[in-house]
Amino acid sequence: QGTRDHPPAQAALRERLLGAVVSCFKRHGAAAIDTPVLELRETLMGKYGEDTKLIYELQDQGGELLALRYDLTVPFARYLAMNKVNNMKRYHVAKVYRRDNPATTRGRYREFYQCDFDIAGQFDPMIPDAECLKIVHEILSDLQLGDFVIKVNDRRILNGVFAICGVPESKFIMACSTVDKLDKVPWEEVRSEMVGEKGLSPEAADRIGEYVQLHGGLDLIERLLQDPKLSQNKLAKEGLGDMKLLFEYLTLFGITGKISFDLSLARGLDYYTGVIFEAVLLQQENEHMEELVGVGSVAGGGRYDGLVGMFDPKGRKVPCVGVSIGIERIFSILEQRLKASGEKLRTTETQVLVATPQKHLLAARLKLISELWDAGIKAEMLYKKDPKLLKQLQYCEDTGIPLAAIVGEQELADGVVKLRDVSTREEVRMSFYTRCQKC
Amino acid sequence: QGTRDHPPAQAALRERLLGAVVSCFKRHGAAAIDTPVLELRETLMGKYGEDTKLIYELQDQGGELLALRYDLTVPFARYLAMNKVNNMKRYHVAKVYRRDNPATTRGRYREFYQCDFDIAGQFDPMIPDAECLKIVHEILSDLQLGDFVIKVNDRRILNGVFAICGVPESKFIMACSTVDKLDKVPWEEVRSEMVGEKGLSPEAADRIGEYVQLHGGLDLIERLLQDPKLSQNKLAKEGLGDMKLLFEYLTLFGITGKISFDLSLARGLDYYTGVIFEAVLLQQENEHMEELVGVGSVAGGGRYDGLVGMFDPKGRKVPCVGVSIGIERIFSILEQRLKASGEKLRTTETQVLVATPQKHLLAARLKLISELWDAGIKAEMLYKKDPKLLKQLQYCEDTGIPLAAIVGEQELADGVVKLRDVSTREEVRMSFYTRCQKC
Repeated sequence: QGTRDHPPAQAALRERLLGAVVSCFKRHGAAAIDTPVLELRETLMGKYGEDTKLIYELQDQGGELLALRYDLTVPFARYLAMNKVNNMKRYHVAKVYRRDNPATTRGRYREFYQCDFDIAGQFDPMIPDAECLKIVHEILSDLQLGDFVIKVNDRRILNGVFAICGVPESKFIMACSTVDKLDKVPWEEVRSEMVGEKGLSPEAADRIGEYVQLHGGLDLIERLLQDPKLSQNKLAKEGLGDMKLLFEYLTLFGITGKISFDLSLARGLDYYTGVIFEAVLLQQENEHMEELVGVGSVAGGGRYDGLVGMFDPKGRKVPCVGVSIGIERIFSILEQRLKASGEKLRTTETQVLVATPQKHLLAARLKLISELWDAGIKAEMLYKKDPKLLKQLQYCEDTGIPLAAIVGEQELADGVVKLRDVSTREEVRMSFYTRCQKC
Repeated sequence: QGTRDHPPAQAALRERLLGAVVSCFKRHGAAAIDTPVLELRETLMGKYGEDTKLIYELQDQGGELLALRYDLTVPFARYLAMNKVNNMKRYHVAKVYRRDNPATTRGRYREFYQCDFDIAGQFDPMIPDAECLKIVHEILSDLQLGDFVIKVNDRRILNGVFAICGVPESKFIMACSTVDKLDKVPWEEVRSEMVGEKGLSPEAADRIGEYVQLHGGLDLIERLLQDPKLSQNKLAKEGLGDMKLLFEYLTLFGITGKISFDLSLARGLDYYTGVIFEAVLLQQENEHMEELVGVGSVAGGGRYDGLVGMFDPKGRKVPCVGVSIGIERIFSILEQRLKASGEKLRTTETQVLVATPQKHLLAARLKLISELWDAGIKAEMLYKKDPKLLKQLQYCEDTGIPLAAIVGEQELADGVVKLRDVSTREEVRMSFYTRCQKC
């Protein structure tokens, strides 16, 4: 339950999608690493806040206590600490596991792919962070998913807002996760949760509300840098300074058109320490509405400068920033779009079917197909001694094989092969054997 | 323990190796499928004989009882039965899990890749079986692993041998697994195990010994077809007839030179019902010996016509034949060879480093690299505001980046980029911006 087989049509679409993502990661100079699906239970504990209960644990059959990885970020941090790596740009495309309530219609499963790109190392501020945003922009543009916006914020700015609004530091994480709901529910609801369940004063909640409903660009950053209260807060000032630098770099990349500095973006995970971001696809809710509404996050990430230190015996820190592409949701969208279009995706890459029009020609087919394979050509034949020509051509049409190489008695006698274009039915005779022996 | 991280150098070699295998599978018209790492515990139970104890089980955290897959064959059979698929040629490259004693020096791990190709469906005899052998031949030749032999046998021939030698049917599987040790220990030891531990009569053991030490080609098949006792056994006769047909097809494929019909090949797994095979690399043990000795199995497979029926509620059978490439052992061999050669495998594919020779040119670098990325070029830059040129060129040499695109004050003024070949140090000036805007 919550896991699934991927039949060929899905696997082919997934291969195409993952191919596009990996090729972007490689374009940015990332190396691949691979870590085990099994991690020590203690490695994963205490990294995911409330969601720790969603970790799959293995039975104690003797030996180490193991669990299935929950994401690719914690294993990456564990890898950097274990191998004392200080600098690395890596990508990792692999499955992760969560004992969640599956919501398969929205592309939420218990076993699903993650596609992560991360930059680890001590560098000048915001250069790697800007590259992560550029990557999200490239991938979403490449995949032609329609209009999107990348929301950006900084944990330091949020914490600064909470501080100047009178939230005690012990309640920052709680306040963060409450603010994070603003993309789904209106401010009034978030406010009443803050005051009711979370025990903030109504005045603090109202002051928070004034900030977290703001979004904009460089102008908003400049305005907040002038804000008499916020500019007095050290963390917020640092965050706003870096945000300004980030926007400068994004301007040079030419992508600020899709970027929104959004103070309501908080992101759930505990380990973020600086810039955070999330990409959302935009869609017209129906044809009568002009406004575009978000239909869910398809990528997210941020800076986590403290995570590697948690795995290092000496607490040695390695600053990191990374992005995770929400491949499952993108996959659902592309799959629905493919279904709607009626287009049939090929599940194989076969270029030619080796066929015979008469009986007793299995030997000729086997000889020809073997030469094609040896020449690197993708070829198939039916596994029948004497298949009917119609059946063989039908197989080409069903599976999208564009060419049939037909060898009959006449062709054998003449030492040629008849090459047939399956869709146009055009045929040419080729002296295949001679050509092949030459090359 | 028994699992491992793959750092970039290993991941790159693995990608190259898996690429070669997958491209062969695609050349033979296979479609990809993907099944979950988690299977129901009951699916895996009773399929692996004694090795069932090596299955990793998940803790009962409520819900279904789960286990990690042990191979890709049983999930494939489960997939065919569940989806009522009668015909399919599929490949699957993925990790499997075994609670075995890891022997990491010999490439044996608890988490490792399997690369499987299988043909399911009711077809004319030996055509798909011959293709599986052709695939093993192509892959081992492509990878240039040195000399190899593919041993072939048939479970029906073995069972016929056991029957005419007076082994009761209930002891066939036991006899099979004892014979299977002949590739590691001499006949005398196998014989004494048969007589001592397994309770066969010395006469039966001796008669078995006469058969299972035979190996050869078409000549041996012909001789056994004339064998007065063996030819009377229905199963053996069927098996020998099919073996003859298989050799005919392999002759048309031109690969009999590497095939040995070997009556000692038994293979451990219970589910094989017909042809079985195993590929072994050959090596001179030392320079004084002329004879080549086997250094371990690198591929294996066979026909399993009963497995899908075990998962079908109505027992509907789907005949299958398949091959599994022992990618981990091949990987160890290639890795050792790479180490010995001193050759350094690149871990990234970056084509060009964007560099600056003076300070205060970060904006120019960001603008240029962004245009390169958008043009599909694999490009990197150092994440420093003002890196030294020497450091930038050193980075190219360390990571194998062949080109540096240098933009300095003069280049900026002239509207050009200096393209430097890192190894030859040759430089050309290119009016990059103009060209880019044209294309």
